[in-house]
Amino acid sequence: MISRLSIDINCDMGESFGIYSIGQDEQIFPYITSCSIACGFHGGDPLHIEKTIIHALHEQVSIGAHPSYPDLAGFGRRKMTIAPAELKAILKYQIAAIKGMTESEGGRLAYVKPHGALYNTASEQEPECIAILQAILEIDDRLPLMGLAGSLMEELTQKYQHPFIAEAFADRKYEPDGNLRSRAKEDAVILNPEEAAEQVRAIIMDQQITAIDGTVFPIKAHSICIHGDNPQAVMILQAIDRMLSAQGIQKQSIAAL
Amino acid sequence: MISRLSIDINCDMGESFGIYSIGQDEQIFPYITSCSIACGFHGGDPLHIEKTIIHALHEQVSIGAHPSYPDLAGFGRRKMTIAPAELKAILKYQIAAIKGMTESEGGRLAYVKPHGALYNTASEQEPECIAILQAILEIDDRLPLMGLAGSLMEELTQKYQHPFIAEAFADRKYEPDGNLRSRAKEDAVILNPEEAAEQVRAIIMDQQITAIDGTVFPIKAHSICIHGDNPQAVMILQAIDRMLSAQGIQKQSIAAL
Amino acid sequence: MISRLSIDINCDMGESFGIYSIGQDEQIFPYITSCSIACGFHGGDPLHIEKTIIHALHEQVSIGAHPSYPDLAGFGRRKMTIAPAELKAILKYQIAAIKGMTESEGGRLAYVKPHGALYNTASEQEPECIAILQAILEIDDRLPLMGLAGSLMEELTQKYQHPFIAEAFADRKYEPDGNLRSRAKEDAVILNPEEAAEQVRAIIMDQQITAIDGTVFPIKAHSICIHGDNPQAVMILQAIDRMLSAQGIQKQSIAAL
Amino acid sequence: MISRLSIDINCDMGESFGIYSIGQDEQIFPYITSCSIACGFHGGDPLHIEKTIIHALHEQVSIGAHPSYPDLAGFGRRKMTIAPAELKAILKYQIAAIKGMTESEGGRLAYVKPHGALYNTASEQEPECIAILQAILEIDDRLPLMGLAGSLMEELTQKYQHPFIAEAFADRKYEPDGNLRSRAKEDAVILNPEEAAEQVRAIIMDQQITAIDGTVFPIKAHSICIHGDNPQAVMILQAIDRMLSAQGIQKQSIAAL
Repeated sequence: MISRLSIDINCDMGESFGIYSIGQDEQIFPYITSCSIACGFHGGDPLHIEKTIIHALHEQVSIGAHPSYPDLAGFGRRKMTIAPAELKAILKYQIAAIKGMTESEGGRLAYVKPHGALYNTASEQEPECIAILQAILEIDDRLPLMGLAGSLMEELTQKYQHPFIAEAFADRKYEPDGNLRSRAKEDAVILNPEEAAEQVRAIIMDQQITAIDGTVFPIKAHSICIHGDNPQAVMILQAIDRMLSAQGIQKQSIAAL
Repeated sequence: MISRLSIDINCDMGESFGIYSIGQDEQIFPYITSCSIACGFHGGDPLHIEKTIIHALHEQVSIGAHPSYPDLAGFGRRKMTIAPAELKAILKYQIAAIKGMTESEGGRLAYVKPHGALYNTASEQEPECIAILQAILEIDDRLPLMGLAGSLMEELTQKYQHPFIAEAFADRKYEPDGNLRSRAKEDAVILNPEEAAEQVRAIIMDQQITAIDGTVFPIKAHSICIHGDNPQAVMILQAIDRMLSAQGIQKQSIAAL
Repeated sequence: MISRLSIDINCDMGESFGIYSIGQDEQIFPYITSCSIACGFHGGDPLHIEKTIIHALHEQVSIGAHPSYPDLAGFGRRKMTIAPAELKAILKYQIAAIKGMTESEGGRLAYVKPHGALYNTASEQEPECIAILQAILEIDDRLPLMGLAGSLMEELTQKYQHPFIAEAFADRKYEPDGNLRSRAKEDAVILNPEEAAEQVRAIIMDQQITAIDGTVFPIKAHSICIHGDNPQAVMILQAIDRMLSAQGIQKQSIAAL
Repeated sequence: MISRLSIDINCDMGESFGIYSIGQDEQIFPYITSCSIACGFHGGDPLHIEKTIIHALHEQVSIGAHPSYPDLAGFGRRKMTIAPAELKAILKYQIAAIKGMTESEGGRLAYVKPHGALYNTASEQEPECIAILQAILEIDDRLPLMGLAGSLMEELTQKYQHPFIAEAFADRKYEPDGNLRSRAKEDAVILNPEEAAEQVRAIIMDQQITAIDGTVFPIKAHSICIHGDNPQAVMILQAIDRMLSAQGIQKQSIAAL
């Protein structure tokens, strides 16, 4: 699935809720090839979801479902202890909602990427990771899971021979063990566009990342994630575009990989 | 679609939420041929929805989506002023969730029936009724709408040549104008099983109903609704079964009509 | 309570929710003398509410409770049909929460102002207006109600001899009948700071407002409302400050009126 | 505070939500001396809260606030990772709401008892326990905390010289370390009324409990908790009454202890 000369760029989208606006969807859409759309449980309401789907299809950007723990007040960033059977049902509900709404606009759902605290939990804990995989299998067994490159999500999808889209982050620093540096620490987010672009270049061309302490570790990623709430998101995306162009790397959506 | 000698019996199902239990789903399933499953906005959580779908498929009962205004605290029984475009998106989200979860269990969604205050509003007001129809058309243009026999819902589906399942109520009294007697009035609900069965008999065999004041008016219904929260629901369903048997009328699910 | 030479300036505050930010609370606080704090039902979560209370006390700005219909997705701007007894309880809960949290920081609650659709409903319909008054009476019978000058809220508080703070709007156009021009119409909001300041001047000095069609009608207001989500809010507040200074009018908080 | 010859009996109350009913409040009120009222975050809506307060005052039962993690779908029984500052605000909001509503009916709030997963977390983890104490201190520094006898809650209240109501359970089995046996295990709940009454007798008269493995450990409790959702709750309360009478022990509300 991976090619050194093409890469998918993904961003979280559709996270606004009612009168509350978040992200820079309008500005970011032209630069990305995949978008992970909020499903209403951490953000996103049906009207914003519908608009985001229409926008993505218009921009020919692949659509992923971005399900979450049920925690609007915490934007899905707080761990919750939910029994696997209930978690699976919660995820099926969200994925089915986005899938059906995407199909209603003539599109098709391209992948599922867990959001926030669930993403982190599933990167390390088997019950949550299995619940996500089962939810996907029951909804559509060909639907790829997108998750952290090198994590438990990658390991378990390989074990169960399920398609996996490994992602790496343009705008987040890494720990030497390959995990993302916690947002609780101040230097977790990369704001310098050139630094982010260089991290992306290294991921694609060298298949490696330099951790916060200087350690270099290997990584294989099919998709690069930019955070829509990074205030420098557009500047970073433009710097990445310049780098990709200079390196002769194509942007290509998940669906085409 | 209608036949004098066969009838669908439907009931609202899957309305429990978390630890909160409502209805008598287990007891009622054996007697019905269609169930309208809560979509999470007035009741129903993903786990209860999933269990109800599995139960319905096991009992070979047709599955309908039962979307609502977003009002868990009011069980969807309070009118809300929602702009048609947002209402349409809210309904698409709910219908898509139930449709995808039903298909994930090997079933297929058979119809859509609005719940509570939305049902009442759509029976009389065009914007809400059109929003429901558009939501259905966008999700699956062959999906029938189930609604009050003789209401605006029936009228508009005829105008737009969309399939309609006209329903009448076994356990509710009618006003002379064909509307349901408001639950705010004490004699709105029929608790006597024989009285309910006789009302059903008259609907099917005579195609007429006797209103609260004795007025008789014509009605054509494909499905008979029993309320799961009627304390006499099972007794009423048994009385209806005896009547159907005596009259030689078959119970037949929506899907087969 | 009213004086031609002093006026209260109020603004809605604390409406952010979780990660979602709304309003310009930081910029607006220095210009106002009263703030109506969201109670969690249309916006506001406990942490934002607490921060807003602390901020208001620090700025010596009077604190009002700003309760709403329970409708976070609709920001309390959608009418809901709620039975008066339940509405009263919903309001008591919200007022009590803000009152207790204000007292916990050493302050005291100065007034109650209904939010959004509830404000509009209570301006015209007796059951909702009475429910608000009863909620206030049960929580603290000396707590003033703030509402639209000349509305049913003013009329009923007079009838029941309950303290009322009549408010007029700096940044909204009026209809000739004294109602606010609906936000659904494009010219409902005043964005020009000088125009807003002149409307405020006329309200205070001439005790009259010029409606959208040129009609002039009388008004008596103790407080002037600015909307925090008006993009020109700070410019308008500065223009009002210049006008007040030129006219020799003092800003004075509700508590001191 | 404790006396061998008097004891408080408490039960969770007011946990119904909208149309959803839970517990046996009507049947249980005559037997108890304190009730912990849901605050709307795991159960309880303003109308049920108000009715429960009125009922408690009528029965001369002491009223406690029973705040929870914000998790209606999980009935507050799922652990959530919430930052202490936000948790404190969430608790202040809930306590203030119940306190104000209680005072609006002429009563006064007698204590605070955390609910469900928060109760368990605060029994063992300092940040959550401190957040609860700070919330109470800020709302009313004389308000006792009710919690598990011998837990971290008791330890920290002693350290900070804050009033504590130690509770023990009539209808739950204990582990040898003094913790409650997890509900995940089948023998966690005592259903036999005589067994429950004997456990209560031993707690009061012998100041000890026999754990599930036969180990006997000491306990000092001011209040005995019965769970309202225990199907045998009324039978257990009656058996306790008979035992108390036989032993010459008085039931006495928290307020009077």
